[in-house]
Amino acid sequence: MAGRLFGLGVGPGDPELITLKALRHLREAPVVAYFAARSRKGNALTTVEGHLPPSKALLPLIYPVTTEKLPAPFCYETAMRDFYDDSARAVAAELEAGRDVAVICEGDPLFFGSFMYLHDRLAERYATEVVPGVCSMLACAAVAGTPLVYRNQTLTVLSGVLPAEDLRRQLAGAEAAVVMKLGTNFAKVRGVIAELGLLDRARYVERATMAEQRTLPLDGIDPATVPYFAMILVPGPRWEA
Amino acid sequence: MAGRLFGLGVGPGDPELITLKALRHLREAPVVAYFAARSRKGNALTTVEGHLPPSKALLPLIYPVTTEKLPAPFCYETAMRDFYDDSARAVAAELEAGRDVAVICEGDPLFFGSFMYLHDRLAERYATEVVPGVCSMLACAAVAGTPLVYRNQTLTVLSGVLPAEDLRRQLAGAEAAVVMKLGTNFAKVRGVIAELGLLDRARYVERATMAEQRTLPLDGIDPATVPYFAMILVPGPRWEA
Repeated sequence: MAGRLFGLGVGPGDPELITLKALRHLREAPVVAYFAARSRKGNALTTVEGHLPPSKALLPLIYPVTTEKLPAPFCYETAMRDFYDDSARAVAAELEAGRDVAVICEGDPLFFGSFMYLHDRLAERYATEVVPGVCSMLACAAVAGTPLVYRNQTLTVLSGVLPAEDLRRQLAGAEAAVVMKLGTNFAKVRGVIAELGLLDRARYVERATMAEQRTLPLDGIDPATVPYFAMILVPGPRWEA
Repeated sequence: MAGRLFGLGVGPGDPELITLKALRHLREAPVVAYFAARSRKGNALTTVEGHLPPSKALLPLIYPVTTEKLPAPFCYETAMRDFYDDSARAVAAELEAGRDVAVICEGDPLFFGSFMYLHDRLAERYATEVVPGVCSMLACAAVAGTPLVYRNQTLTVLSGVLPAEDLRRQLAGAEAAVVMKLGTNFAKVRGVIAELGLLDRARYVERATMAEQRTLPLDGIDPATVPYFAMILVPGPRWEA
């Protein structure tokens, strides 16, 4: 009988922000798979390693590239498609051998994460369970100490990778907004936010709930220091209930 | 010395979807406060009651109304403002007596929840810590087994309370969307989704991760049976990575 596939949200970084359910499945699964950059442990494994026995079988899934901007003739989409195909095959081999596989995911498995591409390839073939997790967006709001979206306000969640004109159009019409995936996109995003007069409402948080977490005013940030795991919150106008 | 205020996200309903951190603070706090409708336990208390010793001091905060549509001359905004003022005073009295208060919040404390109004009234006066939780939106995606938002797609989170024309405008321009707070708004929301040709992509989930959870096709639902704690997901178009 084939093993079961688990997508476990392990939360934003603080090992204490894992759920009881994810922790149970993490401990029970004979194989733990994780995504990471080459020579890195990755955020998900770093988050849970204190919860893992040393004997646990690990299945690393190592990204071939870590940026969407590749020199010609390399193509990000092709490289990632091949990588996710290979990763799905590696996970399927464990499942076919009858072993459950827990894929650990920073934040939540179905909210901007690599697990989604395994899910799309495997969930119809194998029994699959997704355990939702605390996403980084809400961890950032907690760290910044700011309500994110009041009452019947609309929240718009954007990727910092988008072109400035798309960000401008979306943010201009937004009540509450979050811009994720900053990294090298920070200066562009801050420029748009300044242009729209949103600097006062905006909050910057990086590596929320991790040991190195920082939260700063937007104008005090050196763009060269901004990691991918940073975001800008634009909380909705306070509802004076 | 004054007590500390904790806003604890307890997750979407499954008692196992609480985080280790929220559980620790829940157990340590001498007073647990919770919001609920009159004669109800409320979802947050229902979620955690198995984790609480019988001796725990509970501070119920009972909503004066449970709908925004009140007959004249009653005003929802005024009623809620008075209620949140009274609730903040009740919590402050415990804090002034030197007792920590854990306010338990279904889902996440800063994402469309009543805790935000206590936070706005108390966080500047008392040491406050927010523990983020698994929000219902991501619980619904997990239950529906569908990735919510791929790669650099934009996610729009809407309240079903909004007028049909607002929903239409927002959903027409959205890549991925979530419509929360359905209840009596369901027929209106479904109408807009049908009009925009989104019925095939949309998924309905109610009471995700609770014992009574249901997920159904949109056209099979009797609007009279839809609870407030139900939502419609419109996942982003699958990215064929």
